[in-house]
Amino acid sequence: MRVLGIDPGLRNLGWGVIDVAGARITHVANGICHSDGAEGSLADRLRSLHAQLTEVLRVWQPQTAAVEHTFVNKDAVATLKLGQARGIALLVPAQFGLEVGEYAPNAVKKCVVGVGHAAKVQVDHMVRLHLPGVVIKGPDAADALAIAICHAHHVQASGRLEAALKRAAG
Amino acid sequence: MRVLGIDPGLRNLGWGVIDVAGARITHVANGICHSDGAEGSLADRLRSLHAQLTEVLRVWQPQTAAVEHTFVNKDAVATLKLGQARGIALLVPAQFGLEVGEYAPNAVKKCVVGVGHAAKVQVDHMVRLHLPGVVIKGPDAADALAIAICHAHHVQASGRLEAALKRAAG
Repeated sequence: MRVLGIDPGLRNLGWGVIDVAGARITHVANGICHSDGAEGSLADRLRSLHAQLTEVLRVWQPQTAAVEHTFVNKDAVATLKLGQARGIALLVPAQFGLEVGEYAPNAVKKCVVGVGHAAKVQVDHMVRLHLPGVVIKGPDAADALAIAICHAHHVQASGRLEAALKRAAG
Repeated sequence: MRVLGIDPGLRNLGWGVIDVAGARITHVANGICHSDGAEGSLADRLRSLHAQLTEVLRVWQPQTAAVEHTFVNKDAVATLKLGQARGIALLVPAQFGLEVGEYAPNAVKKCVVGVGHAAKVQVDHMVRLHLPGVVIKGPDAADALAIAICHAHHVQASGRLEAALKRAAG
């Protein structure tokens, strides 16, 4: 099973792809889709993110995907911005016919590190332990790989593997 | 010039299309893209909104577009949801190569009614005055038509008509 994890953001949208076979997890690819405010209007930036993420799915052909479910504290402007990028992160896998899981940051940390209140550096460390030799393109890509690992565990644990594969094949 | 206005929302995304020739504004079409929570996951709903709005642009071929720039008060959950729908509302016109204007609700009210603190019922009334005989599909479609009217005035006033047409043609 090939799993795509996405850490949504308007400026930096991290993505990570892993292969899962039984208990074995292998790194496939990771990276960051950029959209710079200097490059154009908000609509143009979202169009660019959509095109970049579409290319990621076209090239790496994941069979299931997951996106981090973040709430940005009290800042409505930041939350709206994140929501717009998150809309693209959810849309693209759905356009490829994939199921898209959603996980709160604490659920991802709990799954990868073992505790829900782990620091970012611990998550990064555990992702490198899970995926030996991986070269990570940046913090957002590390988070995306953590989300992919969490989703892989969740799909396997809940026996949804078969359903996801069936849907990806159909 | 054909103008598309969009009032973004996850459950009800209103849209309205008008034609503008000099000082004359004519109604072309309006409607609402629905995505019901019972119909599927958030990703599926966003995919459905994207497909419905893409069809609106394909059928009505607007040359420029505008989206309402709303902040939902203090509720982060609602703001994130709105942001996700708004991401789709901005993305689709950009995918058709259109410029996408953004207007705060008060700017739309000021343009259509004359005051920024106008009630919803006044906006609806003025939209009907601007577009005699129009049959409006619902409050979100009325708001979308108001946004289109506001954008038309703004584009004309700032002399950006030529640039928008050039971009739509290119």
